[in-house]
Amino acid sequence: MNYAIIRYILACVMGFEALFLSLPCLVAIIYREKSGWAFFITMLLCIAFWFIGTRRQPKSKVFFAREGFVTVALSWIALSVMGALPFVLSGEIPHFVDAFFEAVSGFTTTGASIVADVEALSHTCIFWRSFTHWIGGMGVLVLMLAILPLSGSYNILLMKAESPGPSVEKFVPKIKTTAKLLYGIYFCMTVIQVVLLLLGKMPLFDALTTSFGTAGTGGFGIKSDSLGGYSTYIQGVTTVFMILFGVNFNVYYLIFAKKWKQALHCEEMRYYIGVIAFVVISVTINVHHMFSSWFMAFHHSAFQVASIITTTGYSTVDFDQWPSFSKGLLVVLMFVGACAGSTGGGIKVSRFAIIIKTFFKEVYQILHPRGIRVIKFEDKKVEHNVLRSINTYFAGYILVFVASVLVVCLNNFDLVTNFTAVASALNNIGPGLSLVGPMGHFGNFNVLSKLVLSFDMLAGRLELFPILLLFVPSTWKK
Amino acid sequence: MNYAIIRYILACVMGFEALFLSLPCLVAIIYREKSGWAFFITMLLCIAFWFIGTRRQPKSKVFFAREGFVTVALSWIALSVMGALPFVLSGEIPHFVDAFFEAVSGFTTTGASIVADVEALSHTCIFWRSFTHWIGGMGVLVLMLAILPLSGSYNILLMKAESPGPSVEKFVPKIKTTAKLLYGIYFCMTVIQVVLLLLGKMPLFDALTTSFGTAGTGGFGIKSDSLGGYSTYIQGVTTVFMILFGVNFNVYYLIFAKKWKQALHCEEMRYYIGVIAFVVISVTINVHHMFSSWFMAFHHSAFQVASIITTTGYSTVDFDQWPSFSKGLLVVLMFVGACAGSTGGGIKVSRFAIIIKTFFKEVYQILHPRGIRVIKFEDKKVEHNVLRSINTYFAGYILVFVASVLVVCLNNFDLVTNFTAVASALNNIGPGLSLVGPMGHFGNFNVLSKLVLSFDMLAGRLELFPILLLFVPSTWKK
Repeated sequence: MNYAIIRYILACVMGFEALFLSLPCLVAIIYREKSGWAFFITMLLCIAFWFIGTRRQPKSKVFFAREGFVTVALSWIALSVMGALPFVLSGEIPHFVDAFFEAVSGFTTTGASIVADVEALSHTCIFWRSFTHWIGGMGVLVLMLAILPLSGSYNILLMKAESPGPSVEKFVPKIKTTAKLLYGIYFCMTVIQVVLLLLGKMPLFDALTTSFGTAGTGGFGIKSDSLGGYSTYIQGVTTVFMILFGVNFNVYYLIFAKKWKQALHCEEMRYYIGVIAFVVISVTINVHHMFSSWFMAFHHSAFQVASIITTTGYSTVDFDQWPSFSKGLLVVLMFVGACAGSTGGGIKVSRFAIIIKTFFKEVYQILHPRGIRVIKFEDKKVEHNVLRSINTYFAGYILVFVASVLVVCLNNFDLVTNFTAVASALNNIGPGLSLVGPMGHFGNFNVLSKLVLSFDMLAGRLELFPILLLFVPSTWKK
Repeated sequence: MNYAIIRYILACVMGFEALFLSLPCLVAIIYREKSGWAFFITMLLCIAFWFIGTRRQPKSKVFFAREGFVTVALSWIALSVMGALPFVLSGEIPHFVDAFFEAVSGFTTTGASIVADVEALSHTCIFWRSFTHWIGGMGVLVLMLAILPLSGSYNILLMKAESPGPSVEKFVPKIKTTAKLLYGIYFCMTVIQVVLLLLGKMPLFDALTTSFGTAGTGGFGIKSDSLGGYSTYIQGVTTVFMILFGVNFNVYYLIFAKKWKQALHCEEMRYYIGVIAFVVISVTINVHHMFSSWFMAFHHSAFQVASIITTTGYSTVDFDQWPSFSKGLLVVLMFVGACAGSTGGGIKVSRFAIIIKTFFKEVYQILHPRGIRVIKFEDKKVEHNVLRSINTYFAGYILVFVASVLVVCLNNFDLVTNFTAVASALNNIGPGLSLVGPMGHFGNFNVLSKLVLSFDMLAGRLELFPILLLFVPSTWKK
C-alpha cells in the first residue's frame, strides 16, 4: 500500500473542503448568524491539513485498484468528519455521532436526518447540509480530477471507485476532460433549475438549497414538511429535475455533442423512463381517491415516484399513509434506483436490466439447449467480467443489507421501520416508511444503529467495495 | 414437445395418487367419518385417469430438459388439483380455490393454511393434509422412478427438475437405485420419529401426522396452537427431527454406506448446523426474559429456529410477539432455508455459501489483481455453469418475489403481512408474521392473492424454472 500518495490526495481533498466551507461562511455573514464561526474554524483546520499534507510530494507513483478504493473511502470519511464539525461546534447538533450521521447523509446524497425540527436550524447550517448534497452528487474526487493538474494511472482508478454504476464511461480519452464535462453539465443544469424555481417566486435561499438537493439527488428538506408547502409549479419543476438528474450523464454529453439520435437511443434511459411511467400510472390509479382531482393525484404520484426512484427523498405528501400497493411499489423503487452514471443511488437500472436479461437467457437455454444467445446492453455484448461484478455486487449488497437490518432490529422498533431505514440508507434515499417515513426522522435510533446506517450510506454511495475493503486486514499490508 | 410421453407420465402420477388416497379412505373407515366418500370418489377418478392415460405407450422416446420441466410442473399441478377435490366434495373446504391452496400448500410442504379452525376438520381431512406433506417432501416423481420399470434418458431429467438444490447428487450410477435409497432413508427416519413420539405418550394419529409434517418439512398443525399443547419431550423430539430432515440426504447415504468420515465432512451440513447454533444462541439471549427459565427459552428458540430454517413451520409459541431482533433473524432464516438434497425449502444453504464465496473471491481479486483463486465447495471446484445457474436462480427468485408481493399488496394489509406471506409461500415455510403469523391464517386474502401464493409455493418447491416455463409460449411448440 502506497501510504504517501493516499496522504497526499487526502490533503488535497481537505483543501477542497476548505473551499466548500467558504460558502456557508458567506451565508453566515449575509444572515449575521453566529454559527458562521464554527464553519470558519473548521475551514482553518482544513487549510492546516491541506498545508501539512501537501508539503512533501509522494516519491512513489505506484497506484493500483487497492489504493484507488482506499483513497476514495478515506476521502469520503474525512470529508464527513470535517463536515460534521461545524454542526457540533455551533451546538446545533451537539452529539458528534448525530452530526457525523447528518454529514454522511449529506455527502452521500441520502438526505436522512436525525434533526426532528429542521426549521430550528440556522440558515448557515441548512445551507451547508444542502450544499454537501451538491458536492457529493458528482463526487469530490471527480472535481479534483477536473481541476488539479494530476497525472498518472490513478485518475481512472479514482473515478471508477467514486462513480456509480457497473462500468465507467469515458466521454473522451482524457479523464480530466471527462471530469470537466461532467461538472460543467452538472453546474449548468443546477443553474437552470434555480432560475426556473426563482421564476415560480421561490425565495433565492430556498431555490438554491432545493436545487442542490435535487441535483445531488440528496433530499434534505429545509422545511419540516419537505416540499409540501410550495406551489404546484415549484413541485412540478422539482419533479422534472429529479428525473433529469437520475438520467445517465452520458446522455447529456451526447446531447452536448449534438449526437441526438445516440442520446435518445440510450437503453438504460428508456427502461428508466418506462419504469417511472408505469409506476406513476399505477400509483395514480391506486391513490386517486385521496386527492381532489386526477391531476393532483398524478402530480403527487409523479413527485413521490421521481423522488424515490432517483433516491432524492423529497416529499410533498406523507406517502406512509398511502395504500399498501403504492407503498410496496415505492419500496421496490428504493432498490431499483436511478441510472448508472447519474447522481442517483440505489442498485441502478442497468444492473437490474442486465440481471433480468441473464434470467431470460437461461430460460432460452433450457428451451434451446444447443442455441447460443449473447446478452447485449446498450448495443454491446455484456462481458463476462461485468456480469461477474454485478453478481458479486448483489451478493455483497445482500450481506450488508441483512447484517445492517439485524443490528438496527436491536432498537426493537417495528420491522417496517428497520427494513426501510436500512433500505433508505444503503440506497441513499432519505425517508423510509413507518417511524422513518417522510414525516419521521432517524434521531431515535441508538448510537450503534446510527453508525451502522452511516456505514450503509457510505457503502451505498461508493458501491460497497471501497468501504468494505477498509475492514479487510490484508488491504493495509505494505 | 413430446406430448405423448408427458400424458403417459401424468397418468402414472394419477395412479400413484389413487394409491395415496387409499390411506385416508382407511382412516375414514377407522373413525367412521362420512368424508371418506369424498376421498373414495376422487380415488376412482384418479384410477380412471390412470387407466385411460396408460393404455397407449408413447411411440417417441424423445425427452429433453424442456419435457422434464414441463412434466414435473404439470404433475404437481395435477396432484394438487386432484388432492383438493376431497376437501371440496366433503364440504369441509367448500371453495375450490381455497381447497387448491390447501392442497398445494400440502404437497409443496409449505403448511400455510386457509383454515381458521383446524380442529373443526374431520380426522380424514387432517390426515390427508399431513400425508400430502410426506408425499411432497421427497417428491412423487422420485417415488415413481424408484418403483416403476421406467428406463431412458428422462430419469435424470425428471429427478433434476423435482429435487431441490443447485445440483443433483447421484449416490449410485443407477437413478432407480438412488431413488430407492432416498425413499428408504426417508421412510425409516419417519418410522423412528413416530416410535419416539409414541414413547412420549402421543396418540398414534397425532404421532403419524406430526411425523409426516416433520419429515416433509411441511408444518400443517393438527391443533390450533400447532405443537404448543404437547409436552416438552414431544416438542424436543420434533425439534431434532426437523433439523435432521433439513440435512442433505447425501449425508445419510454416506452413513448408510458406513463412510462416517465423509459424512461428517459435508460442508453444507456444517454451515447449516453452524447457522442454527448461532441463531439459537442469539434468539435465546434475546427472548430469555419472556420465559420462566433459560432452559425453556433455549427449548422454544431451538424449536422455532429449526422450524423456520428447515421451512417446516410448526410453532410452540407465538413468535410474532418476540422482539424485533429475533423476528428479523427468523425472517432471514426464511430465505436461507435448509440444505440442498433435503426435504426442506428456501434458497438453500449451499447457494448462499457459494454466493458468499464468490463475494470474498472478488474482494481477494481487488487486492491481488494477478492472483488466481478457485471457488471450492464440498472439496470440488464450483463449475462456471453451477455459478451461472445460481445467479440466474437469484434473479428469477427476486423477480417472482417482487411481482408476488405487489399483487398481494392489493389486499391492503400491512407490509409485514404481505412481505412475509410471500416469503413464506415461496420458501415453503407456512407461517409468516403479523396477520399470517403462527396464530393467523391465509384465509383473508382475495382469490387472486391465493392463486399467486399457490403459484409461489409450486415455484418455490420446484425451484422456479419448471413452473415458469409453463408461461413461456415457445415451451409449447411441437
